[in-house]
Formats: sequence, C-alpha cells, structure tokens
Amino acid sequence: MPIPERRTSAKAKTTAKDVFSTDSQNNWQKAGKFVLSSKLWEHSTPSQTCDVILTFPKDTEDYVVMWLLSRLRARVPEIDVHVRQMAHTPVYAFYLSASYEVYQNWAEELGFRKKLIGGGMVEFKVDEKEQFENHDDPTTFFTSGDKQTIVLEMINTLRAVDGDELGKIKFCEGMQIVPKLLSEGVIDKLFPLHNEDDLVKLRKTWVKAFFKPQPIDDICKYFGVKIAMYFAWLGMYTKWLIAPAFLGIVTFILSMRSEVTRDWCMLACNIFNIVWATLFLEAWKRRSAELAYKWGTLDMPSEALKDPRPLFRGEFKRSEITGSLEPHYPSIKRNIFRYCVSLPAILVSLGVVVVSMLFCFEFQRWVDKMENPPKPLKFAPKVLLAVCIGQLDDNYKKLAYFLNDKENYRLQENYENHLIIKLVSFQFFNAFLSLFYIAFYVRDFPRLKNTLAALLITKQVVGNVKEALVPFVKQKVKEWKQKKKMEKEKKELAKNQPADKKTGDKPKELDTPLMNQAEIESNMPEYEDTFEDYLEMFIQFGYVVLFSSAFPLAALCALLNNVIEIRSDAFKLCTNLRRPFGEKVENIGTWQDAMEVMGVVAVMVNLALLGTGGSIQRMFPNMTTAETILLIVFLEHLVIGIKVAVAYAIPDIPEWVETEIAKVEFKRREALKGKPAPAAPQTPPASPTQEGPTEAQANTEL
Amino acid sequence: MPIPERRTSAKAKTTAKDVFSTDSQNNWQKAGKFVLSSKLWEHSTPSQTCDVILTFPKDTEDYVVMWLLSRLRARVPEIDVHVRQMAHTPVYAFYLSASYEVYQNWAEELGFRKKLIGGGMVEFKVDEKEQFENHDDPTTFFTSGDKQTIVLEMINTLRAVDGDELGKIKFCEGMQIVPKLLSEGVIDKLFPLHNEDDLVKLRKTWVKAFFKPQPIDDICKYFGVKIAMYFAWLGMYTKWLIAPAFLGIVTFILSMRSEVTRDWCMLACNIFNIVWATLFLEAWKRRSAELAYKWGTLDMPSEALKDPRPLFRGEFKRSEITGSLEPHYPSIKRNIFRYCVSLPAILVSLGVVVVSMLFCFEFQRWVDKMENPPKPLKFAPKVLLAVCIGQLDDNYKKLAYFLNDKENYRLQENYENHLIIKLVSFQFFNAFLSLFYIAFYVRDFPRLKNTLAALLITKQVVGNVKEALVPFVKQKVKEWKQKKKMEKEKKELAKNQPADKKTGDKPKELDTPLMNQAEIESNMPEYEDTFEDYLEMFIQFGYVVLFSSAFPLAALCALLNNVIEIRSDAFKLCTNLRRPFGEKVENIGTWQDAMEVMGVVAVMVNLALLGTGGSIQRMFPNMTTAETILLIVFLEHLVIGIKVAVAYAIPDIPEWVETEIAKVEFKRREALKGKPAPAAPQTPPASPTQEGPTEAQANTEL
Repeated sequence: MPIPERRTSAKAKTTAKDVFSTDSQNNWQKAGKFVLSSKLWEHSTPSQTCDVILTFPKDTEDYVVMWLLSRLRARVPEIDVHVRQMAHTPVYAFYLSASYEVYQNWAEELGFRKKLIGGGMVEFKVDEKEQFENHDDPTTFFTSGDKQTIVLEMINTLRAVDGDELGKIKFCEGMQIVPKLLSEGVIDKLFPLHNEDDLVKLRKTWVKAFFKPQPIDDICKYFGVKIAMYFAWLGMYTKWLIAPAFLGIVTFILSMRSEVTRDWCMLACNIFNIVWATLFLEAWKRRSAELAYKWGTLDMPSEALKDPRPLFRGEFKRSEITGSLEPHYPSIKRNIFRYCVSLPAILVSLGVVVVSMLFCFEFQRWVDKMENPPKPLKFAPKVLLAVCIGQLDDNYKKLAYFLNDKENYRLQENYENHLIIKLVSFQFFNAFLSLFYIAFYVRDFPRLKNTLAALLITKQVVGNVKEALVPFVKQKVKEWKQKKKMEKEKKELAKNQPADKKTGDKPKELDTPLMNQAEIESNMPEYEDTFEDYLEMFIQFGYVVLFSSAFPLAALCALLNNVIEIRSDAFKLCTNLRRPFGEKVENIGTWQDAMEVMGVVAVMVNLALLGTGGSIQRMFPNMTTAETILLIVFLEHLVIGIKVAVAYAIPDIPEWVETEIAKVEFKRREALKGKPAPAAPQTPPASPTQEGPTEAQANTEL
Repeated sequence: MPIPERRTSAKAKTTAKDVFSTDSQNNWQKAGKFVLSSKLWEHSTPSQTCDVILTFPKDTEDYVVMWLLSRLRARVPEIDVHVRQMAHTPVYAFYLSASYEVYQNWAEELGFRKKLIGGGMVEFKVDEKEQFENHDDPTTFFTSGDKQTIVLEMINTLRAVDGDELGKIKFCEGMQIVPKLLSEGVIDKLFPLHNEDDLVKLRKTWVKAFFKPQPIDDICKYFGVKIAMYFAWLGMYTKWLIAPAFLGIVTFILSMRSEVTRDWCMLACNIFNIVWATLFLEAWKRRSAELAYKWGTLDMPSEALKDPRPLFRGEFKRSEITGSLEPHYPSIKRNIFRYCVSLPAILVSLGVVVVSMLFCFEFQRWVDKMENPPKPLKFAPKVLLAVCIGQLDDNYKKLAYFLNDKENYRLQENYENHLIIKLVSFQFFNAFLSLFYIAFYVRDFPRLKNTLAALLITKQVVGNVKEALVPFVKQKVKEWKQKKKMEKEKKELAKNQPADKKTGDKPKELDTPLMNQAEIESNMPEYEDTFEDYLEMFIQFGYVVLFSSAFPLAALCALLNNVIEIRSDAFKLCTNLRRPFGEKVENIGTWQDAMEVMGVVAVMVNLALLGTGGSIQRMFPNMTTAETILLIVFLEHLVIGIKVAVAYAIPDIPEWVETEIAKVEFKRREALKGKPAPAAPQTPPASPTQEGPTEAQANTEL
C-alpha cells in the first residue's frame, strides 16, 4: 500500500481562507503541474467515484497517515481507500468509496428502507433484492447521500483493539477510532463530496424556481432526511401563512375605521390565530409522518439498538443487547446531573437574563421620561442592552453546551434535542421579553405595533435579503474575476506548454476536476446544522401567533420573508457550503414540542392582550376588573381545552400510512410463517405449506 | 355425528333464576338420574377437558343445532365439539375444546407472546417451541384462559360462504357466523368454564388474603390481561393512597387549632394532592408498561391487522392488507357522524343534565330558606333530583350506546374507549356538580365538607360492604341450606339405590361435576365489564384529588374503602359470576386519559378553593380581588406547567423493559440475517453464514 510522501511545496503556507477565496479556480489551473512532480501518484489508482473525503491537518507526519490507513484496510477491508495529497496544500486526504455489493450488504446491515416494486417501504435485504425497485441499476438504487452515509457508518465501525495507540492518544478497546481522531484534531475533516450533476439540477429546480413547489424528494436524496424535513416544514409553514396574511390585510383595512371595529377585528384575529396554529401543528405532524414513511424513517427501530454518538463517554462493557463492547453510562447519573445541576443552573441563568433585560428596559424608560437628557445618556440604555445581551448570549451558550456535554446523551438525536431546549429557552426571552414588557407592563399599544413591525421588517426581511443577496453578488463578482484571470492564465499556459510536453497524457488524467473539487470543498465552510434556520423560523412563528392581533400585518411580513428564506437557505446549501452528511430523522423533534408550547403561550398572550388592550372593557363597559379577569381566564381555559381536544382527536399518522405499514407487517408475518397469504382466515394454520418466494425460503436458498 | 334428541322434561319450565338460586346444588344431585333416561349419551364421547360452552335457547329446533354443528365440523375441523343436553333444562350445549397441537398452531397464528427460556417475551412459533419455557408440559404451557381465548378465536373464524342461511337469517359471504347468531339470539350464551382448582387457589391467595399483595400474575392467567390490569391498577392506587391518607390525618388534627394553621394546611394539602396525582399517574403508566410487557401485550401489532369486532358493520370487500373478505366502513363517514351528530347530541344532553341539576339545587336552596316549609315541599327537591337523575341517566345511557353503535368502530378497544368517554362525561357531572355548586356558588364550606364525608362514607364504604357482605352471607346461608338438603337427599338416594342398580357404573361416570358445572355456570350472571368498577374508582379518585383540601380525611376513607373493594371485587369474580373470556389490553385505555384530565381539573379546583375559601384573603389581607384572582391564575398556570413538564420528563416505559424489547428485536434481526450475533459490529456483513438455529432455517426444516 504505497503512500505518497509528503512534499512541502512553495504554496505550503496557503491558509484555508486563501484557498477558498477567489483563487480556488486559479489553483485548479495549477493542479496539473503540481502533481506531475511526484511519481508516487502512479502507485495509487485514481478513483472517479469517490464518496467521502478524509483529510489530515497540514504537517501531519507520515506514520500517522500510515497508522490509520493500515487499520482501515485491515479492519474494514470493504472500503476502497485511495490516498492523495492536495494540489496546493501539503495535506493528505483519503478518498473513500466502496463497491455496489458492499453498499448493498451494508444497507441491509444498517436497516435502510427501500421501496418494493409493488409499493411499500421495507428494510432492504440482499437476498430479496429482486423485490425492490431499481435494484438492477447500481447508479440509481443508492443515492449519493445513501452511499456517503454507508461509508461514514463503515468508517465508524473501525474500532480500537487492545493496545492500539497513536502518539499520546490511547484507545480503549472497542472505541471508535475516527471520531476520536477527529475530536483530537489528528484528522482534520471528514466530509462527503458534492455531486455536480445533482447540484446543477437542484439549483435549477429548487434555488431558482422561486414560485414552484420545492423538489422535496430530490432534496432528501441529496442532503438527507433531516435537511429535507426542514425545507418541507418551511414550505408548508409558508403556504399556511397565506391565510393569516390575507386575514391580516382585511383586518388592517377594517381596523382603520373605528375603535369598535378594531376591537372585534382583534378578537376575530385572536381566535383565528389560535385555531390556525393548532391546525397547522397537527397538519404538520401528519405530513411529517407521510414524509418519514416515504423516506423510510418512520417508526425507526428501538433506540437501544442504535449506535451511540461518537462522543458518548462511559465505561466500556459488553452490551446486554448486542453483546458487543460499548460505552455504558447509567441514566441515574445523567438524571441526577440534569435535575440537580443543569436545571437549577439554567433556571438561574435565565433569571439573570430576564432581570438584566428588565433593568435595561427600565433604564431606557427612565431616560425617555427625562426632558432633554444628555446625549450620552440617551444612547446608554440601548448600548447597555446590546452589550448585555451579547455577553449573556455568549456565556449562556457556553454554559448550555457545557451542561449538555456533561449530560452525556447516548444518541445524537437526544443530545441535539436537549441542546435545543436549552438554547431555545434563552432565545425565547431574548426575542419576546421586550414585547411582553411593552404589552403588559408599559401597556403602550402603538409602541408594541411599531416594535413588532420593526422586528419583522428590519430584522427578518432585511436580514434575509442580506443573507441571500450578498453572497449572490459576491459569487457573481468572483466568477467575473475568475473569468478574467483564467483568460490571462490561458495565455501564460500557452507560452509554457512546450516545457510540460514530455509527460504525455498523464496531466490530463490527473488533472481531473474530482481531485480539485475535493480540495476546494475541503476549504468551504461547513453547514452548521438546521438549528439556526429553525430558530429563526421559530421566533417568526412566535411573532405571528403571539402578537399578530396587535400588528395584523405580521403574517404578511412573515410570508414575504419566507418566500425569500426558502430560496436563500437553498442557495446557501447548493453554492457556498461543504456538503453535509445525510442524517436520518423521524420528525422535526423538539421543534414540534417548542412550537406546541408556543401555541399554548399564544392563547394566554392573545387573551391577555384582549384584557390589557381595553377591548373587553370597551365591549362590556359595565364589568368590574375582577369580572373581566374571570371572563378572560374562563375563555383561556375554554380555548386551551378545545385546542387540546382537537390535537387529541386528529390522528398523528394518516390512515393511508397506517394501512401501508400494516400491509408490510402482514407480509412479514406471512413470510415468517412460511406460507402464502390465505384468501380468508378460515384456512387452518395446522400445517404450513410452502408456496411463493417467502422470506424463510429466500434466506436458505443462498 | 349423533345429536341427542331434544327431550321435554318435567322441569322444562325452570327459569334461569330458579336454576341459579339455591337449588343448583340440588340439580347437581339429580343430574345423574336424568341423563340415564336417554341412551343417546352413549353416542357422544364424554369430554373432561372442555374449555368453552355454547348453549342454545330453550326450545331450539334440532335442525338449527345440526346446521351449526355441521358447519363447525366442516370449516373449523380442529375444534373438538361435543353436543350435550343440560340435565335439568331442555337446552342443547356444545362443549368445545382442542388438542395441544392445535392450540400451539393457533397460538402462533394469533401472535401469542410466550416467555423464552433465556427470558424475554416473543411471539410463539411452533417450529421454535424448544426455546420456550414449559413447552413440553401441555397442562401448564397454555393457561386455561389462553385455551379459552384460542377456542373463541377459532369459533370466530367460522365464516359464512355464499348461500349460507338459517331460517330468516341470511349471511353475507365472509360474515362471522357465531357472533351473528349470538346477536340474533339463536345462540344463547358462549362462555368459558371455570377451573375449580385454580379458583380454589385464587380464593385462598386473593379473596381471603386481605392484607397480602394480590397474586396479579395468577389473576392474569385466569381472568386475562384486562381484568388483571384493573386489579393491578386498583392495588397500586390503594397503596399510593396511604401517603395522602396519612397527611390527611395530620392536617385534620392540625387544622383544629386555628384558622391560620388551617389555611396553611389547606395550601400544603393542595400542593401535595396535585403532585401526588401527577406522580401516581406517571408511575402507573410505567407499571402498566411493565405488566403489559410481562403479559405479552405491550406494543401490540398494528391496529389494522386486528380482526374487526363481530358487530362491526360495513360493505364486505377484500382487505387491502390481508386479502381476506372483511367489512369496510370509511372513516370519513364515521367522523362526519361523530362531529356532526354525536358531539352536538352529547353536548346538548350534558347541557340539559347540568341545567336540570342546577334547577333542582336552586329549588332545594329556595326550600331551605323558607321558614317552616310544608312537609311535602321539604322533600320535593330531593325527590325531584333523584327522579330527574334516574331518568336522565337512563336516557343518556341509551343515547350514548345508540350513538356509539352508530359510530361503528372497527375494533372492540376503540368501541369501548369511545363509549367510556361518553358515559364518563355524564357521570362526572352526576358525581361532582353538586359539590361544585356548593363550593363555588353557595360557597358553604362546612356543607361541602359534610356532603363529601357523606358521599365517601355512606355511598362508598357502606355500598361496598353491602356489595361484599351481602353476597357473602347469602352464600353462607345457601351452603348451609344445601348441606341440609344434601343430607336429606342422601338418605332418599340410599333408599332408591336398588332400583338404579342395573345400570352399573354408568351413572357415576356421567354424573361428573363437569356437566353439572356447565349447567350451573350457564345460569350464573355474567361479569359485565370492568367499566362499573373503574367508574366507581374514577369518581373516588375525583373526590380525593378535587376536594380533599376541603375534607382532609377523604384519602383515608378512600383507602379504607379500597382495601375492602379489592377483595369484594375479587370475591364477586371468584364466586358469583360466570367466567369471562380473557381480553388482551395494552393499558387501561381511556381511564388513564380520564384521570389525567381529572388531574388537571384538580389543579383548577384546588386553587379556586383557595380563592373562594378565603385562605388567600386571610394570608394576604391587603390584596384587591383582582390581584387575588391574578395570583391564583398565575399559580394555576405555574402548577399546570410543572405538571406537564414532569409528565414529559418521566419516560412512560421503564428502561429495563426497553432493554428487554431491544434484546428481542436484536435477536430477531440477527436471526433474519441468518447469521450468529457478532461479537463486535466490525464483522463484515458481506456473506451471511448460517450457524445456530435461526428462524429462517427452522422454518424450512418442517
């Protein structure tokens, strides 16, 4: 297994930023020349079908690369590993891939669900592959995302045996090597490659098709279920926003007439909002179940059967369930930490946040009341608030990550969900406390309206345009610059051509875009997570359902924003960022819960607004304060009761999905019994006769 | 297949009541003589191991019996059917049973879960029976309950084919014959037989073991999961009552000191109650999951795979899922009926109930305020209320059954759950409206206390003693009478002995208790359902959690009552009633939801009691009414929030159950792959090697 020796090139000091910025195209041009200087390339087969890239940091010693390579080849022999050095940076990379047969076997091992020819999603079985759609087409049966996930899973099965050590890093038996090396910085990056063809298609049907439905299935194939689920959710939410946007416009026009009309409009808006939010959340649950079924992630196997996330710590023991070595961490320890440390720490921190913010608001109010305050004092509260929030946000984030790491969740999913709860709690106060303060303490309705409008229009729409437009313009400028440069270099190359002639065809072959693509992509920024995207939408959802009775155009603003948001998020993924590994999720997880909590808070806030805004008082002028409060509380309870009843009454999984699942389950049972499905159940189950290609038979026909 | 001819005996006119009452023992004595008069008995083999009895009404024509018998023997040949005529009533009965092999096959067909030798519950497979505990002991492997369920399921597979008709009854193809005949009255009863040995054991370890834990597993084996689940719930609830009962006594003693102490005690009681109710409901969910796992009903297969309940109506079509003929009823029709007819009808009826009751209360109050009301007027409101409630209850029940039947649920489970919701709504108002009226409208705290005490002590404890003691005394009297009679008859028999001598041993053999047992049991009253038992407990739970701050001894009363309740319900089942078929349930169904709603209502009621009872006012004398209300509402929201958070945080299924399920799932997967469980996942999944007795192999080794 030859490894190319590490060369220090003239360009060794190129930083990631340099490479990523305008001269990546430039590098691409120079790559050919570079490679030629080493004969070592001839020892490793060039791989056109590379799925995943693993890179080492600059200045990694050869023996480190060798160490990992030998272990990979010995313990996971099914992975095709090709070692390359990047063209312009002295960086080693493993190009990882596998054969169609290997992918099939692993798809079975990992419980990938694929579509049967007759319809229905079941776990793929190699022995029954004839029953699956497209099984005879290696190029389409597994999507590029599938393959990348499989390679990642294969890499993660590379576990340490007793005695493995690399420099100062000692491995316990059974520890996953690659994640450990990644977290220690011995491996720099592990990422899947983009597929230019698919990307071109996605850019056309998704990024640029502004008013068309999103190609959700293609997104899922390319970016995985988790990201596709986000866009499906965002798309559905945007569509649902049309109704409240329309009603908002009507209300806005009507409410200009008189105060009485305004009050009734506000009441109507309130009721509509609450009902809308409830129905939307329920409808999404059903849609989400449909998508998860279609994408093969509905009703995933027991959590205990899933592999622990790589950073999960614990005593290595044989698992009771699978018999393999696995870290174990008693949940009692986790729970003690959660309820005795995390929970109080989070509550105290949130308390500090709320008090600090309220202090800033009060300070502002005190300044506002002054006649002719000195200029520095005029801006002091705003500056203080900004600094305060910034500092608190930083510290809180650190705390949240620290606590969540300490809680040491076994599964990535649980880790993320608990992190989301922690982070969202802070962001909730950050986003809404000022509005609550204005609405319920200051009770300044015009100001509430203005603040909301400012938040929705300035922060969201402008922020979004910035997010989408700026990179777009940058990209265009870059392309224009590169064109100019390329023209210039072509001329230069034409001059130098004779000098390189002796190497024959070789340069062309090695000068494949593949290698350069890997280098370019390894320097692209990473797609963090869906977290930021969901958070932005969650807060917007909050503005719409909590306060839209105060500012009826909120839904319209949100709608306009989201039409852009979808495409700008799509643009970001398809253009600027390294490709993420596809992740399997069953639903949008904690975000659903968070939005349901928001839905309940919305009932309270909306009804409280009715009370504090004076609407009830104007409608029923003879009521005492106590009676008004009782009326509002009664209404609140009634509405929440109805909300809960509606959520209870609507089944979370649509009937057709249930039927499909039952069909597959029935087939499975019949196959296990080793007899054909009876026409009617009176067939005695006494002696199973064997007909038809059942699972049992197929298994033994090997 | 000889059928004994119908004889009209001198005792033909004996009514069910006659037989059931004191002379059943008497009949038992005479049975031998009776049977001897017909030579036909010799044609049918006597069956000692009969599981299920099917009886026809008196005066059924022979051809009806023949019709059913021939169909049973032709279409479900695995059932052993023996035809008998009852000794003292001209009633035909089928004695149904099957062989151990047939039971095994059907247990597999029905997906019975049995315990593996290594532990873990999995679906029984005939081909792998060696892996199950006790598989070689036909007498213990299936409990009598298991066998009876299997026989019932076998009978239910007797379906009509085209052209089947019996008198005026026409069958559609695929219709279940026996349930149809039962509902038409052509078959009188279908019931499983008691097992005297088990019953004697249960009476000893359960009915009479007053202060010992209930033998829950034995109950489950004998009466099935549904009934065992009720008693497990009742047992746990009773144990949990000890804490509030103790606190209640302390509060009761302390609150006699001063009003201030009373207020604080009340507050403490309130908080404790709410926390207690939440924790109890969560703890039960976990316990219920454990029991369901142990009894093999946790996570039952998809609803769509279960057979429809016999009375489910619909167009007969081939099922999309199983391919067999089944009635179909579109859920859209059901939903339209539910929301456009049922829901408004129920709401209006409940409205009528509430208004009528309030009218009676107001009338009562008006009478109470009068000085020296005329005697008839004094009792008029009470009589009116009693008549009113009685009438409304009757009508409401009829309406609820009518609507629920019309809603035409496919599964028994859903049918029952929806019926429970309807019936409980009425009972909630029936039980609690008067208390609400006194607490929040009249605001007469001493009266609330007295009413509660009366309800708990009189209605529950006395009612219960009556329920338990009266039948017990009756039973004793009956036994004493029978003893005397038997002695008398023995003497008579001794005199007549020479006349019967010529028949040899025959009388002894035929005079088996089995036959007589069937006759006796067929005349016992049926065990209706767990509904009444749950309802009683549900209302008691309501008294404890809603109002115990007003009457701290409520929990103590409930505790005392339940200690008796458990044994009196047990007594009822083990002595007086026909044995019910065992039913499989996963949990206590709608009752859990109903009690959770009660938990939330409890928060509101308890906090409202704090407000209306004047406690808050005494604690914070400077508060305005509006502020008091706001404080209470704030507390209410806080408490409900905490309650929801606690319920969300506690996992519904205990970790060990999850692990057990995962273990079985892992084994299943490995077996399907046809290879042994790998020591560590790095084993390549390339070529499945076959070792060990896997499912796939076992199936083809037939």
